Amino acid sequence: MVKVAVVLSGCGYLDGSEIHESVLTLLALDRAGAVVTCLAPDVAQSSVIDHVNKEPANEKRNVLVESARIARGKIADVARAKAADFDAVVLPGGYGAAKNLCNFAVKGAAAEVEPAVARFLREAFHAKKPIGAWCIAPATVAAALRDEKAGLKLTIGSDPATASALQAMGAKHVTCPVDEARTDDVHRIVSTPAYMCDARIAEVAAGIDIAVAALLKMAR
Amino acid sequence: MVKVAVVLSGCGYLDGSEIHESVLTLLALDRAGAVVTCLAPDVAQSSVIDHVNKEPANEKRNVLVESARIARGKIADVARAKAADFDAVVLPGGYGAAKNLCNFAVKGAAAEVEPAVARFLREAFHAKKPIGAWCIAPATVAAALRDEKAGLKLTIGSDPATASALQAMGAKHVTCPVDEARTDDVHRIVSTPAYMCDARIAEVAAGIDIAVAALLKMAR
Repeated sequence: MVKVAVVLSGCGYLDGSEIHESVLTLLALDRAGAVVTCLAPDVAQSSVIDHVNKEPANEKRNVLVESARIARGKIADVARAKAADFDAVVLPGGYGAAKNLCNFAVKGAAAEVEPAVARFLREAFHAKKPIGAWCIAPATVAAALRDEKAGLKLTIGSDPATASALQAMGAKHVTCPVDEARTDDVHRIVSTPAYMCDARIAEVAAGIDIAVAALLKMAR
Repeated sequence: MVKVAVVLSGCGYLDGSEIHESVLTLLALDRAGAVVTCLAPDVAQSSVIDHVNKEPANEKRNVLVESARIARGKIADVARAKAADFDAVVLPGGYGAAKNLCNFAVKGAAAEVEPAVARFLREAFHAKKPIGAWCIAPATVAAALRDEKAGLKLTIGSDPATASALQAMGAKHVTCPVDEARTDDVHRIVSTPAYMCDARIAEVAAGIDIAVAALLKMAR
C-alpha cells in the first residue's frame, strides 16, 4: 500500500489550507487505496482571517490544531516526520501554504520556508519521493528547493505576478487548466492550479483526481 | 436548475460541521448541476474544541463566521433565508448540528432548536421541500419537526442511546450502512449515517452521493 503524507497549513483558504482541496485530496487518495498521514507544523498561524468579511481577526490560532479539524484529529507534527516513512507527499493549497508553511504571500521570491516543512520537503526530494502541490503550494515547494537550482516545472494558475515570483525562485511556470494537472517527470513533481482559478468545486475535483492519480503512479 | 440550501453549523466535527461531509455534499450537488447557497445561524458556538487533544479550548467563535471557511466566504444568515427560495435543504453532520443548530448533544430528546434554523426547517417541511440530513443532523430535523408528530423515518447510525433519543422525539429510526441512504418518501426526507459510522472518507462519500441523488430526484 502506498503511504502518502498530506501536509496541511490550517483550516480555511484565507489563513490555512483550502478546505475543499484538502478534502478532495483525502478522498482521491482513499479511493485509490493509499494510506494517508496528515501532517502540519506546530506553529502559530501568521494571521487569522474572518472568512465572512475577509478582514484580520484579533485572534491567535495554531496551524497543527486547526489542521486537525480537516484531519478529524488524526494528525502529526511535521517536525517529527521522516520522508523515508512515506512513498509520496502532497501539499494542498490555500493561503496557509503561502503564509504558514512559508511566507511567499509576504516576501514573494525571497520567501523563507518554515524549517520543519523545508527539511521534510528536501528529504522527500532527495529521496526521489514524488511531491504533489496544488494551487499556491507549488510556491512553497519552489522556495524549499530553491537551492537545488533544479528548474522545477510547476503550475500556479494564471496570475502573472505570482507566476513571475515563482520563476524568480528558479522554477519554470507551466500553464494548466483547472481540470487538468502537469507533471515534472524529471523531478517527480505533480501540480494542478485548483482554486488559483476561479472555478467550481467539481472542476477543482477533476484536476485533483488527475493529479493524485499521476502522483500515485509515480509512487508505485 | 435546482436551488439547494446547505445549512452549516461551524467548521470541524467536534464543535461545528463535519468538514468532509460538508465538502462531499457541495461536490455532489455541484456535479449534479445544483445551485448551492450555504447558510448558517449568526450565533456563538456552544463550545470550541481543540481537535488535537479533543478538550474544550478557552475561545469564542461564531457559527456563521466559522462556517464561512467551508463555504469559501459565500454564506448567508439562515435568519434571512426563506425556504420558498429553495427547492431542497441539506444539513451535513458534525457535533455542530447537535450543539449549535440545536442542543441535542446536551438535552437529548428534550432538545431545543436554534430559532432561525427551526423556523427555516418548518417552512421547508410545510412547503414539501425535500430535506436531507446526514450523520447526527437527523436529530436536528426531528427536534425541529417534533410537534408535527409525523413519524419521520430517519437514519442516525448504530448507537442505541442516540437512536433511542431520536425515537423519543417521535421519529422512527432506520438502520442504514454508511455507503447507502434511506428515504422517507411520505415526508420527503433523505438521510445517511456518514461519520456516525467509523468509516473511511470514500465510504462516507458513497453514502452522500446516493443521498444527494435521492434528494435532487425528489426536488425536480
